[in-house]
Formats: sequence, structure tokens, C-alpha cells
Amino acid sequence: MTTTRREFLTTSALAGAALASAGALAASTTVPATAPNATPKLLHHVFFWLKNPNSAADRAKLIAGVKSLAAIETVRSIHVGVPASTEKREVVDNSYHVSELLGFDDVAGQDTYQVHPLHKKFVDEHQHLWSKVVVYDAMKVD
Amino acid sequence: MTTTRREFLTTSALAGAALASAGALAASTTVPATAPNATPKLLHHVFFWLKNPNSAADRAKLIAGVKSLAAIETVRSIHVGVPASTEKREVVDNSYHVSELLGFDDVAGQDTYQVHPLHKKFVDEHQHLWSKVVVYDAMKVD
Repeated sequence: MTTTRREFLTTSALAGAALASAGALAASTTVPATAPNATPKLLHHVFFWLKNPNSAADRAKLIAGVKSLAAIETVRSIHVGVPASTEKREVVDNSYHVSELLGFDDVAGQDTYQVHPLHKKFVDEHQHLWSKVVVYDAMKVD
Repeated sequence: MTTTRREFLTTSALAGAALASAGALAASTTVPATAPNATPKLLHHVFFWLKNPNSAADRAKLIAGVKSLAAIETVRSIHVGVPASTEKREVVDNSYHVSELLGFDDVAGQDTYQVHPLHKKFVDEHQHLWSKVVVYDAMKVD
């Protein structure tokens, strides 16, 4: 329960919106139950390849380090993952070892993150673990 | 307001969690206002490179097609984007043209999506637009 609560606790603005949506849901039975939920506007997706992919300790250390980035105040969402056991297809790149998806409101939020002491500390303390990093930044289109 | 409502309308399970979190927020003032919000467990991130990157019409058609995938019932979140105007760094790949991030509850949800008629229709009607596709599937680690 603690984890569930923590995951759903958001800014007061988001909490207000959640209340509004809950009210809207209660008021209407015509809303499709499968409508997708919101995502932050700016996605910052980082894929890491470990120097020692067979080291469970290195992987765990990198994952813990990435999770620490959630404390940066402009981070709106975080997903730390590993390759999923989806079907192997030619277009799927499952060669990476750790995935970090952060959501921001805007480019300024991502800029703040890049120079934040917690981000710099993360890079300093973990960059010896990876051999390659690829980053994709995507801005939502309306 | 319509857009805001629609974006935050989720499954009844999520709505329940939102209500629970709103209650928790009201009950506690010690929760950091910046705690990130939740993301689905399985991320399916697709990057498209257009055959004709200078064609605004092709780009718009692909974006509209990708957005249509939100109607598939196992899709929990969607973000359709283009390269963000973040700082150009060696590790950032901003050569793609359209980004599609879909969230699922689990691998089964993604499997359902892959064979769904709306997904097949999207591929059939849009694959002539792209020259390259790269997919990353990432499962959240606890």
C-alpha cells in the first residue's frame, strides 16, 4: 500500500486534476474505461549498456542510482526498466541493460535536471559502469 | 477542460487509486509536492525515421496514425512526440522523426496490441512512410 500511495502522489495540481477526473467518472457512465492516462510533455529516455552485463551487482547499482534521480524537483514521472520479455523481432533492440524514462513539463525542466547536483553525482558515481548510452528526447505533439 | 478531463480519465481501478492518493494527500502534509507520478509497467517505445523527412504531410499522416493506436483497449498511456529542442549532446540521438511511447500493464497487453486489427491497419496504411523503425520494450523494475 505504501508503494501504491507513493506512486500516485503527485503535485497538488495533478491531485486536483485527479479529483476532477474522479468526479467526472462518477458523473458519467459513457466514458470509455480504457481511455489512456496522461503523460508529461517532454520525455527523456536513456538506454544504458553495461561494461559488465553479467554483473548483477553492477546492474543493481546502476538501477539504484537511476532511481535516485526521481528526487530532482523537475522530474514529473520516472520508469526504470530492463528489457521486457516481448517477442523478439528484427526491429526490437533488446541489447541494452537498463532503461531510464523521465518525464518533464518542458525543456527548461530537463535543463534544470541536467545541471542538478543529484544528476551530476549520479553521473560521477556510475559512469564507470556503462560502456554506451543513447538518449532520446521527445516533445509531445498536440 | 474537455481535454484535461479526457486525459485524466482512466480505468476504474486507476480512478480508485487516484481517489486513494487524493485522500492520502489530504491526510498528510509531509509528502513532497514534487513526487513523480505513476507510469505503466511495460513501456513500448518506437522511433520512426521517415522516407521523406522534409514532407510535413507525411509526418502529419504518421502522427495521426500513431495517435489512432490509443483506441486499442490494452493501451494504458500514450505519448506521441518529435525530437525535443534539448541541448545537442553526443549521446542524444535526435535523428528520428516521430516517437511513439505506449504503456501497457504487462507483456500480455502488448501482445494483444501487436495482433490487434487497429495496429495491423496502422502498419498496413503507414509503413510506406518510414525507412527505419527501432523499438525498445522496457519492463519496470521494483
